[in-house]
Amino acid sequence: MTAYQNEKIYLDHAATTPLDEDIFKKMTPFFKGVFGNASSQHSFGREVANALTCARDDVARAIGVPSKEIYFTCGGTEADNLGIKGISLANAEKGKHIVVSAIEHPAVLESAYSLRQFGYEITEVNPDGDGVIRPESIEKALRPDTVLVAVMSANNETGVIQPIKEIYERVHAAGAYLWCDCVQSAGALPFSLFPADGWAISAHKFNGPKGVGVARIKSGVRFLPQMCGGHQERGLRGGTINTPSIVGCAEALCKAQKNCDEVNAYVSSLRNEFEKRVVALIDGVHINGKNAQRLPSHSDLSISGCEGQNIVMLLDMKGVAASTGAACSSGATTPSHVLTAMGLSAECVSGGVRFSFGKDNTPSEAQIAAQILSEVVSSIRSK
Amino acid sequence: MTAYQNEKIYLDHAATTPLDEDIFKKMTPFFKGVFGNASSQHSFGREVANALTCARDDVARAIGVPSKEIYFTCGGTEADNLGIKGISLANAEKGKHIVVSAIEHPAVLESAYSLRQFGYEITEVNPDGDGVIRPESIEKALRPDTVLVAVMSANNETGVIQPIKEIYERVHAAGAYLWCDCVQSAGALPFSLFPADGWAISAHKFNGPKGVGVARIKSGVRFLPQMCGGHQERGLRGGTINTPSIVGCAEALCKAQKNCDEVNAYVSSLRNEFEKRVVALIDGVHINGKNAQRLPSHSDLSISGCEGQNIVMLLDMKGVAASTGAACSSGATTPSHVLTAMGLSAECVSGGVRFSFGKDNTPSEAQIAAQILSEVVSSIRSK
Repeated sequence: MTAYQNEKIYLDHAATTPLDEDIFKKMTPFFKGVFGNASSQHSFGREVANALTCARDDVARAIGVPSKEIYFTCGGTEADNLGIKGISLANAEKGKHIVVSAIEHPAVLESAYSLRQFGYEITEVNPDGDGVIRPESIEKALRPDTVLVAVMSANNETGVIQPIKEIYERVHAAGAYLWCDCVQSAGALPFSLFPADGWAISAHKFNGPKGVGVARIKSGVRFLPQMCGGHQERGLRGGTINTPSIVGCAEALCKAQKNCDEVNAYVSSLRNEFEKRVVALIDGVHINGKNAQRLPSHSDLSISGCEGQNIVMLLDMKGVAASTGAACSSGATTPSHVLTAMGLSAECVSGGVRFSFGKDNTPSEAQIAAQILSEVVSSIRSK
Repeated sequence: MTAYQNEKIYLDHAATTPLDEDIFKKMTPFFKGVFGNASSQHSFGREVANALTCARDDVARAIGVPSKEIYFTCGGTEADNLGIKGISLANAEKGKHIVVSAIEHPAVLESAYSLRQFGYEITEVNPDGDGVIRPESIEKALRPDTVLVAVMSANNETGVIQPIKEIYERVHAAGAYLWCDCVQSAGALPFSLFPADGWAISAHKFNGPKGVGVARIKSGVRFLPQMCGGHQERGLRGGTINTPSIVGCAEALCKAQKNCDEVNAYVSSLRNEFEKRVVALIDGVHINGKNAQRLPSHSDLSISGCEGQNIVMLLDMKGVAASTGAACSSGATTPSHVLTAMGLSAECVSGGVRFSFGKDNTPSEAQIAAQILSEVVSSIRSK
């Protein structure tokens, strides 16, 4: 056993990231004294309502939209539910056809599928072999009764960035709305790359707290509330305002966007060094999405002769945290729907392992992880 | 100006409560190190998944049901949405008729109303003049196609406790399900008082964190997920697990239930002393729900010749935080739907003010608040 095996290396930042200490400090007063209900009319409520207004304005400025387009949610999943179901149900007079990319997050796919009970029809569009959803593929799927199209900004498994501008032009020409799940790109890439009628954002992906996110829905786009209740969020999302988390979400997004150029350069240098070493050390490695533009953090590998599940387990025993596909699908024994949709061989699909780097990783961690991966692969292949 | 006016008195615990310091301490490690995604298969995920299992078991034990009946949500509103919409949609073969009490929280009412778009019919049942939903009134509203009935454990404005046992018997005899929003009673009254097929709980009402709650749904009761996404919560509630908040919710519920007898006795003594003084100092005070069983914390008053809105504003200027109706309806200019449904006069409805006491209030605060209220009422009446 080598010395480095006593230290854990976290390479699963696409699943979740640690909360930054300074973000936690900004949240703390709202746990410890400033505790009012933002809807209350007395001073306890007003000081919280003020914090909410500031957080909303900060998020709006950070992503470049008016404050009134911001709806705070309990996370990316709720934002996707609100966008997919809320917009589709409110605009049924246009039609009941929805187009989704086949590589969307389950929050998008399952929301779309849930509308089948109300007579909606879902068309899934596959990516090319590099994991890119081609604008012309989306165009082919559009129909006169298409009400909504959903394509994510960047895939959560491969990190492949999608050509949202080109897709948006085609979707709008067809009179449909485009929903863009930006959960993986938020904080790393500017939102201007992903013009759409709505975005989903999750704070815990950019060193903010869990349990909070944002749905941004363009002014004029009608939608039905999914969290029915009080008059919070202009009556469109009920539930007592979760002030500490919302403050943390806004702080974390602003911080991530401010530092993103520097962080992206650093994180991609780690990822690139990792991949260089992996390819040098291990035969039969396929880097999924390699020919496409990818997020700086992601390295999604398929390693021949190995089950991804086994690799992840053995890596964990040696102190390296990686993932087979998305965390929210982990535990499921079904193969990655993303790699399957990319048309990869069954061996590549079952051999998929995702490494995702973060700003707190070190160059030596990237190197050690590559070394440990090669040992793990050797041990699997030697059996 | 009297000396006491420099100190604020918070009498709006029905809207929200401060987070207990020891609960915050239990949450802190999950913000500051134990940050994994509970769905991840590596050690970072497992330690979080373990905490989730413990929290679920703690909540289940505290409320006296099996752990598998616990679904963590982002709050009481989501729990109500899941119960009302999820159960009604999944059991449509029984029928599309829903009965709700007219004094339910908007999370219940709006969830029920939202089902009209799918062909559901809603019957609202009014309480008697004391704010009690009579079991026989529910019985009269039941039909062969009634799929779900919703009656809360205790009303959030008046604090009036509802005869859920008797209602449950009648609902079950009709083959329908009973949903019981326990947001106001949780932590104060035992759940055994409120037998039902499902309960909604919100942690911030019993000195836990905001942004987390519980839907308890009885085994065997089918329901459709409302937060569609990953396989979290047995595939029935998607979204990355919000570990710190869930841990805080479980801790707060256990603590509240452990201390509830002592706290209830103390809080009701404050409330009773307050009401005694108010009635002695002010003419024309009607205590809403006085003849019914009430939560120990609530004092809902209608004061003749005064607008509740004005009272709350003037109280706030003198450092006392109270509420007109529920916080989530505050800001709305519509009169209280609860007092209206109780059949109170227009003057009583518009003169409604809610005071709600908590364990951190002092006897002197209760006395001072009564004194300030009498001054406020005098100043309004003298205009």
